[in-house]
Amino acid sequence: MAEGTILSIDAMGGDAAPGVVVDGVAILLAERPDIAVLLHGDESVLALMVAAHPVLSGRCQLVHSDSVITSDMKPSQALRRGKGSSMWNAVEAVKNGEAGAAVSAGNTGALMAISMLILRKMEGVHRPAMTALWPTMRGRTVVLDVGANLEADAAQLVSFAIMGEAYARAALGIEKPSIGILNIGSEEMKGHDEVREAHEWLREAELDMDYRGFVEGNDISKGAVDVVVTDGFTGNVALKAGEGVARMLGNRMREAFTANIMTKLGAVFASGGLKQLRSQMDPSNVNGGVLLGLGGVSVKSHGGTDARGFAQACQLAADLAASHYQDEIIANLLRIREGGLAAD
Amino acid sequence: MAEGTILSIDAMGGDAAPGVVVDGVAILLAERPDIAVLLHGDESVLALMVAAHPVLSGRCQLVHSDSVITSDMKPSQALRRGKGSSMWNAVEAVKNGEAGAAVSAGNTGALMAISMLILRKMEGVHRPAMTALWPTMRGRTVVLDVGANLEADAAQLVSFAIMGEAYARAALGIEKPSIGILNIGSEEMKGHDEVREAHEWLREAELDMDYRGFVEGNDISKGAVDVVVTDGFTGNVALKAGEGVARMLGNRMREAFTANIMTKLGAVFASGGLKQLRSQMDPSNVNGGVLLGLGGVSVKSHGGTDARGFAQACQLAADLAASHYQDEIIANLLRIREGGLAAD
Repeated sequence: MAEGTILSIDAMGGDAAPGVVVDGVAILLAERPDIAVLLHGDESVLALMVAAHPVLSGRCQLVHSDSVITSDMKPSQALRRGKGSSMWNAVEAVKNGEAGAAVSAGNTGALMAISMLILRKMEGVHRPAMTALWPTMRGRTVVLDVGANLEADAAQLVSFAIMGEAYARAALGIEKPSIGILNIGSEEMKGHDEVREAHEWLREAELDMDYRGFVEGNDISKGAVDVVVTDGFTGNVALKAGEGVARMLGNRMREAFTANIMTKLGAVFASGGLKQLRSQMDPSNVNGGVLLGLGGVSVKSHGGTDARGFAQACQLAADLAASHYQDEIIANLLRIREGGLAAD
Repeated sequence: MAEGTILSIDAMGGDAAPGVVVDGVAILLAERPDIAVLLHGDESVLALMVAAHPVLSGRCQLVHSDSVITSDMKPSQALRRGKGSSMWNAVEAVKNGEAGAAVSAGNTGALMAISMLILRKMEGVHRPAMTALWPTMRGRTVVLDVGANLEADAAQLVSFAIMGEAYARAALGIEKPSIGILNIGSEEMKGHDEVREAHEWLREAELDMDYRGFVEGNDISKGAVDVVVTDGFTGNVALKAGEGVARMLGNRMREAFTANIMTKLGAVFASGGLKQLRSQMDPSNVNGGVLLGLGGVSVKSHGGTDARGFAQACQLAADLAASHYQDEIIANLLRIREGGLAAD
């Protein structure tokens, strides 16, 4: 194997696995000479696919596994029956120090459960949080939690802010990410107790973070801040509501441009711009959900991704593996605890 | 005044008042011979504007008011100092039985507070809820609450479902609207206690409503159900997150079509389709927020609306005034109470 970052990849997860995964790894390795991979899955199937890509030669080690976590398995089933599967082995290689990060496009709930079980929680973290990279007018914004927890008290919201800040620096390369807490706008009833309490903590804590206060739902797409902090219920609903609007407008755009001969002609002339816009409207282009707060890096790629998207998720995993984001999180959580904020 | 529905209109509220309001009323009355209006505001200004529209002659009664609720006034200030303003008088005319519904494009918080104070709550309603009409692939969906309450317990969610159902019938003309409760997708941790409890109630209560169970954020834009029920915090965030995505994609569309000479040429050919799409992307085209659960109809028009949008908000107000939605809500709330569901 080559020197540098080693990624542990579940080759059998995702709608078009293992073909898309192997193609994605080939794109990745062609662009990043510093990366090598462990590829977990059915060796007899993978060997031929890997052989078809010369770039993989010597930098892609196959690790055979007999079983696969299917997309319809519940997290509890995956925990009971998943041992020895390609997903399980991919995560276990991170635990054992054989790789710096795991990547899978398989069953989200199963990956979260298996990663929690094997990698355990990071020192000082009580509740890991799921992140999303939300496309904005100015780039991308980290939103968390988007579904790992149903509720969050003030201490958890503060820990999400700390985790999201370090993650934005590692994943988006922003030196000092700005942070906001999601709230609603009415002047005289600003937010739940938890939200207001977390706000006070972040304003007063000496964390050297760029905390900007409250933001509203429409501020996310504006890119008003780099990190938007919320509970998992609200974050999940907001993310999916936004995806739904993007899909609807994408459909409407297709309809609008096939309405008559003039609009069809217009679409031909404008096809470059249209193609770009459609891709920006496609939620599946935003790839790489990360469960933050674990004792190792485990990245979820979108199940319906293409090879390019899978390669992006791998790049994200490699950036995280090479960064100091875990140390930064541990240090800031310690500062907060010393300041007296109780976590449950 | 003509027979039929009488609307009580705040002529001084909104970014371009009173011009846009008077123009909107003219559009309304040209289309709806069954409607007449009371127009509240500065008589000296309004008299000339009204005289310029022959269609208003004999069907638009001016009611002078000396003061105006400004857009920066807090709800508490509006309550203390608002008496005698055009907004206050517009709502009071509904209370006094002079009109069937009030419409204002002015300060949202002030209109909510003044409407609550003057119109009081409907029999059996403990917490009024703010509605939005969300554009979907199939038409429009009622979402509530979008911000009148920060939290909602199970009994409140059930009352929102009852109010939203009657409202969808009156506002959208759907005979038997389908209803869903907003939740997140993870199989093994379906929602807060409140959400699950409300779900059980709506499944088991004998209400003759088409309750369909849980929906997720992306189901709203799909038009999966006609009424989406949630607490005011989650609903407000979802609505604004969706608006933000629509605005961002609208901006991206403009950029995409001005990228180069070919795309500009394409935009010229496709201008019909583009114009239609831009208007669908514009959140301000969805007009008419209604605070449900009051003892009278009070409709909020978007502050930045044009005359056509203001006329739409007035149509909605007239449809509500002519419907039996309040009686339907009172009857269903009574059934629920008899079934033993405690409201706070």
